[in-house]
Amino acid sequence: MSTSVSLLAPKTVPDMPAVAGVRLATAQAGIRYANRTDVLLALFDAGTTVAGVFTKSKCPSAPVEWCRANLKSGKARALVVNSGNANAFTGKSGRVATKLTAAIAAKAAGCKPSEIVLASTGVIGEPLDGSKFAPVMQSLAARAQPGEFFAAAKAIMTTDTFPKVATAYARIGEATVTINGIAKGAGMIAPDMATMLSFIFTDAAISAPALQALLKDGVADTFNAVTVDGDTSTSDTLMMFATGQAAGAPKIARAADPRLKAFKKALLAVLANLAEQVARDGEGARKLVEIVVEGAVSKASARRIAMSIANSPLVKTAIAGEDANWGRVVMAVGKAGEPADRDKLSIWFGGIRVAHKGARDPGYDEAAVSAEMKKPEIFLKVALGLGKGRDRVLTCDLTKEYIAINGDYRS
Amino acid sequence: MSTSVSLLAPKTVPDMPAVAGVRLATAQAGIRYANRTDVLLALFDAGTTVAGVFTKSKCPSAPVEWCRANLKSGKARALVVNSGNANAFTGKSGRVATKLTAAIAAKAAGCKPSEIVLASTGVIGEPLDGSKFAPVMQSLAARAQPGEFFAAAKAIMTTDTFPKVATAYARIGEATVTINGIAKGAGMIAPDMATMLSFIFTDAAISAPALQALLKDGVADTFNAVTVDGDTSTSDTLMMFATGQAAGAPKIARAADPRLKAFKKALLAVLANLAEQVARDGEGARKLVEIVVEGAVSKASARRIAMSIANSPLVKTAIAGEDANWGRVVMAVGKAGEPADRDKLSIWFGGIRVAHKGARDPGYDEAAVSAEMKKPEIFLKVALGLGKGRDRVLTCDLTKEYIAINGDYRS
Repeated sequence: MSTSVSLLAPKTVPDMPAVAGVRLATAQAGIRYANRTDVLLALFDAGTTVAGVFTKSKCPSAPVEWCRANLKSGKARALVVNSGNANAFTGKSGRVATKLTAAIAAKAAGCKPSEIVLASTGVIGEPLDGSKFAPVMQSLAARAQPGEFFAAAKAIMTTDTFPKVATAYARIGEATVTINGIAKGAGMIAPDMATMLSFIFTDAAISAPALQALLKDGVADTFNAVTVDGDTSTSDTLMMFATGQAAGAPKIARAADPRLKAFKKALLAVLANLAEQVARDGEGARKLVEIVVEGAVSKASARRIAMSIANSPLVKTAIAGEDANWGRVVMAVGKAGEPADRDKLSIWFGGIRVAHKGARDPGYDEAAVSAEMKKPEIFLKVALGLGKGRDRVLTCDLTKEYIAINGDYRS
Repeated sequence: MSTSVSLLAPKTVPDMPAVAGVRLATAQAGIRYANRTDVLLALFDAGTTVAGVFTKSKCPSAPVEWCRANLKSGKARALVVNSGNANAFTGKSGRVATKLTAAIAAKAAGCKPSEIVLASTGVIGEPLDGSKFAPVMQSLAARAQPGEFFAAAKAIMTTDTFPKVATAYARIGEATVTINGIAKGAGMIAPDMATMLSFIFTDAAISAPALQALLKDGVADTFNAVTVDGDTSTSDTLMMFATGQAAGAPKIARAADPRLKAFKKALLAVLANLAEQVARDGEGARKLVEIVVEGAVSKASARRIAMSIANSPLVKTAIAGEDANWGRVVMAVGKAGEPADRDKLSIWFGGIRVAHKGARDPGYDEAAVSAEMKKPEIFLKVALGLGKGRDRVLTCDLTKEYIAINGDYRS
């Protein structure tokens, strides 16, 4: 873990309320790290529904495969997360470890192994010894209590420089429900690969299919619109649990239910907040970069162009150097493979138009742009002038510290 | 320009022979750099055919557009290349500059402006003053002589740390023909964007359509199989000129002519040599990395997986750190979006198998792999076990020096 907190970390941390029907505990299982918590157990009341979205990697981790198989029932009674070992690319032993972990947790939680969901983050390719959970699991279950979300966020960190939490309330019918979220991720991390994990907890009463639909919708413009280094983990996991324990919470069967209007907005806020925190904790990051592409032929096209800009090492190093290098933005637009017309292209840094209709904007004030580039938050906009497609992604700059974190640990 | 030559630079530089029908000269036009040559004029005998492949960027430079329009005739009498200014994203003034440059060169060369081809490399977005060529062009034409290829390669450098030249002979029928090539490119370079430019000169007599077919074939596994940072230039240009002036050279009309067998092989060797030199001069590079992917469902699939590995910042930083981090290779395979089966995957570093059938190879010798990783040339192989698709790409590692070159120049 890094010793210094990212300069871009949120200035305040919210008090995380309890979520009715959710109890949490953390422990030191000694998976890899010493003197820190590395296991989280979350227990859910009977009737809790679950939904999840996972990495699109063709080489997913064993816990991702476990969850994909067991989420089909739509029910969960416990979540076990460990840091220090991703249980990814571990072959048959990976499946043995997930099975053993679920069996140990099921015994402690008093449920079936198929009602346990799992996530692991840390080193890849190292066999995970599932029996390490046995000595701590009974105690975790006994100690589990509401409102331990900050401790939970800490236990799942790898090279994150700060725990990531977010919370929101929403009205559903006459009931007030809580939505709490935790996340970890800072890119892909030394000594090996880390992962993006996030868990959302609510006491709303929402069916599993509806929850899945909400999560899928919610992730598109939040977690899926963030990139640190363009490298997709084998373990990316976002799961959401709905206990239905909020007082008077109406049972919602369909995602299209109009009573979910406020809930959807609140969920989106929690997801967006956590996703932004991941970008703010990007490895070595000194700048948070918001990229808006508009005037594309479609939203999907705008997304691909925005991602091409966000993942360009030349754009990212220019921003690290506080250089409004719009030539590199042109390059990244040009290589995206999406419809673009050089002579209709305009580019803004921090609200100042620096390029217009295929050439440098003759009127732009270099000093004003330089001042914008010194800020910790950079706003970059590209207008293509072709259609109405618009999208937004978040990223961070690329600094020597990223290289140090990911390349220097053997030197 | 960098002051120190890349550690990966070729140990020897070939003597570049003259190519009958080609005369070269260089000059200082003061485009951007002081005290160095920055303009190259190549004059070709009447009857010279030309072919070219260019950037796929949707925002190409003005010279790329000029060449695309004028290559249709298949004929060229002169090539003008300048470094210091890419004449890219310069709007209408870019087109004015190419027209003026061609007019100045045509007057000096005694030909039509449409017989002039152009290339520019350097800063993007800065208007290029075409009139700067006027004072030097007549003298360039008067001084042009055979055999100045090394000086030509020097004049087109930007942040390249060494000039890139290659040469080969081939028999066509009873004639011996020469193929000379020069190239520049080291990624994308401070203070702005640079480009990959390469020019091939031969005294063979080959029709323009045949030349185009040869070039298109030749580039697929050479220049198109090299990546430094995944950022595609707005100006990438590879042109080939055939003067037909070799003694006894038979006139070849079709690329499929069996007499071209040795020529094709020699051309491929020149292109591969230059492409490898570009990877060896990758910005900040300390390791040349050869990536072979085999067992893919097709060659195209193998290429995409190899490129996903080659462009992964995590793989590149691991190699910079001399770490055989095959977990990151798994990640890069998994994110490529191509068919892959984790449990059939094997990975080698420097010929040593480190992962097999979806898990760490239990038999691998860590010390032997560490010794491989300390070498300046790293060989990385991935076997997917799915089919017969195989491909190879070259790249380099990602070091702090890359960040310094591209991000630090304002500090």
